[in-house]
Amino acid sequence: VKTNQQPRSIALIGCGTVGSSVANFFLKQKRIIHDKLNLDLRLKYIIDLDLSKAKKAGFNQELFNHDYRIALEDDEISMVVELIGGVKKAKQIIEESIMAGKHVITANKALLAHHGNELFALARKYNVCISFEASCGGGIPIIRALYDGLIANQIDALFGIVNGTCNYILTAMTQEAKSYAQSLKEAQATGLAELDPTLDVSGTDSAHKLAILAALAFKQKINFESIPIQGIDTLELCDIEYGSELGYVVKLLAIAYRLDNGISLCVQPAFISKRHPLAWVSGPFNAISVYGHATGHTMYYGRGAGGQATASAVMADIISVALGTAQIYFNKLNIWPDKSVQKQNLPVKDIVSRFYIRVMAVDKPGVLAKIADILGRYKISISSVLQKERALQNDSKQGVPVVITTHQALSETVSKALEQVDVLDVITGKSVCIGIIDEHPE
Amino acid sequence: VKTNQQPRSIALIGCGTVGSSVANFFLKQKRIIHDKLNLDLRLKYIIDLDLSKAKKAGFNQELFNHDYRIALEDDEISMVVELIGGVKKAKQIIEESIMAGKHVITANKALLAHHGNELFALARKYNVCISFEASCGGGIPIIRALYDGLIANQIDALFGIVNGTCNYILTAMTQEAKSYAQSLKEAQATGLAELDPTLDVSGTDSAHKLAILAALAFKQKINFESIPIQGIDTLELCDIEYGSELGYVVKLLAIAYRLDNGISLCVQPAFISKRHPLAWVSGPFNAISVYGHATGHTMYYGRGAGGQATASAVMADIISVALGTAQIYFNKLNIWPDKSVQKQNLPVKDIVSRFYIRVMAVDKPGVLAKIADILGRYKISISSVLQKERALQNDSKQGVPVVITTHQALSETVSKALEQVDVLDVITGKSVCIGIIDEHPE
Repeated sequence: VKTNQQPRSIALIGCGTVGSSVANFFLKQKRIIHDKLNLDLRLKYIIDLDLSKAKKAGFNQELFNHDYRIALEDDEISMVVELIGGVKKAKQIIEESIMAGKHVITANKALLAHHGNELFALARKYNVCISFEASCGGGIPIIRALYDGLIANQIDALFGIVNGTCNYILTAMTQEAKSYAQSLKEAQATGLAELDPTLDVSGTDSAHKLAILAALAFKQKINFESIPIQGIDTLELCDIEYGSELGYVVKLLAIAYRLDNGISLCVQPAFISKRHPLAWVSGPFNAISVYGHATGHTMYYGRGAGGQATASAVMADIISVALGTAQIYFNKLNIWPDKSVQKQNLPVKDIVSRFYIRVMAVDKPGVLAKIADILGRYKISISSVLQKERALQNDSKQGVPVVITTHQALSETVSKALEQVDVLDVITGKSVCIGIIDEHPE
Repeated sequence: VKTNQQPRSIALIGCGTVGSSVANFFLKQKRIIHDKLNLDLRLKYIIDLDLSKAKKAGFNQELFNHDYRIALEDDEISMVVELIGGVKKAKQIIEESIMAGKHVITANKALLAHHGNELFALARKYNVCISFEASCGGGIPIIRALYDGLIANQIDALFGIVNGTCNYILTAMTQEAKSYAQSLKEAQATGLAELDPTLDVSGTDSAHKLAILAALAFKQKINFESIPIQGIDTLELCDIEYGSELGYVVKLLAIAYRLDNGISLCVQPAFISKRHPLAWVSGPFNAISVYGHATGHTMYYGRGAGGQATASAVMADIISVALGTAQIYFNKLNIWPDKSVQKQNLPVKDIVSRFYIRVMAVDKPGVLAKIADILGRYKISISSVLQKERALQNDSKQGVPVVITTHQALSETVSKALEQVDVLDVITGKSVCIGIIDEHPE
């Protein structure tokens, strides 16, 4: 396979929101890059089945094509930028691109989360590289932080707010006391949430990004299927309010810890102290906290989606490949998934954390004692109690909320204790349990 | 000048707090880097006039030397890491290192702010590179964000909290209502502030970092002497309190704007909205907000000082030079100061901003009208007024505070108006004026 020494001609496959922003850099903002680089980059193909966005943007129609294979057969093309999204077709295009000796740049988190390991191995076999800054955190250069800026660190933990749709919804619930349904509707109205928001609100999109970030941070092969995922769609407003009274903000977090016996990954709505920088991240913004053994806490903040921001990340990758630095990192570092081992992902039941527990109970003396007794028998130590008067709903059948935060406890133990609590005769509904993330020790 | 193809032998010059943390990576934490890299890096010399820290750390004494020239004469040495600080001697060492064909890695912000332009030109002449991630923001990979992750962006503005000592003092004043003197004393007690804190509290250290960051962000030669600098040592607690009531937090900010007719740089204590992420940065942490035309707002947060965090940045540079990527960026990008033009730094009087103004006036009717009349004559539009009852001090001679925030106004105009205000017979002391930084439009 022959790859030319100075990769400069680019094929763009997929010209939707991000794709047209990328094309814009070449066709309308050429001066910015030209001023900064001694390289003459050239967009040679804009390929999509539907080129209506490209036409509307007024791009040079001579670049348009419906068939990606024309780019793969063109020896001048050294890079393929895949921005069609989805898994099956994108995988096929990327595999064919690699086998045609083209470097690949992609924003496709779902594909990398599911098939990254094999795609990286294939790229190595054909002496090309895969760059994917745009796959996580939009315009935030978080992938580079992991393979370059923080490279000398052993990463101990990583917490990410990596889905802007969920963060927008949670911010509306937290700051404006709007219900989940109402907040989702508003997110849909602003175009932030899809008509079918499942991929976002279920936590799956966050888990895709977690798989990519954790692979690099911990130098591990990640089995995506092993990541426990919990979405935001069952969150109740009252828990956000009680959490706030206790000093916490709820965020959908992608969580990764390095532990002695493996790594622990999960995506879940979690309470985080109002003093933690992640608690301040509001609206559609994303942020990723990375704890290195030398740096301690570092955080990276910015817009996690949108055409322009994501295109900025795609362009950084295109420029790295054109400069040849992407290839060096890809070849000389051991952190890429295909070179990594697979350590045990600790099952979520083995995760030790603090917990927020809410149970709804009848408004009678002795209720708290019964609950505390069960927790005590499971050796779960109580950190604080917030017993509210019946106020939110004047429905005595629903009972009154008893809110408890625990000290460190094993997730499995808490689950078992709550099974006991839930069958007490004084309990009027299923208990709610939300993890509390304390500041990671540096 | 001959430089070997795979630079792997390193001379460390300066073994203080940061230097010993760097040596630690090679001598005690070798496995972390070894696991991530296919490179055998070797620390060959630890050079300092005073090697007591190195001895205490138990480093291999065979590496110790008092004379840096032994490293420059050693053909195996491809990189020199300068960590002695200060300007004159460090400049000499770096110049000799460059002329001996060694790549240079430095954390020396004062040196780069004053002599960066000529040192970069010299390095280019001798075909070596200078890397300086550790010069700004400690462990935060902000230099890389500017030359790599954000490279496709035209940077519109940059606001930085880049001095941990000042931020620690301001946090104590803001969150605990302690006076400047008391907060400084505490910072000194914890080792965060020097016995002579002038370099930090005067804003000079922040200006050094601003000069380095702005040069890269805006691709400009910066004349350090032209940066207006204002420190935190004259800040009064009452202004922090009144600002807080108006929704602002005071931060020592390194501020850079790109404007049509040049760039505008300054270091000053400024009020920033509590909704802005920089307002949340507390204690010794640093953070830099960078506004790119494509990314919009991105922010980078972490520990701005300390041996371990700074050593993480030094190590990232050492690894980049060993990989060869640092040299590529240095050679192929146009953003380095020696390749940049010098545009006009706009004088601070021409800066348009919103302002917080406090005047102390006698407690009589008509005072506000007189002040408002003067502002009106200068066409300075008032945004809000906070007139406090005499409470903080029960000293009628001091008068009562009148706090005004303005809409956008020219700095020079506000100064002229305040000169008029200060000579009113109802005024009991010199007015205080603090800039307000609004969220930069994206």
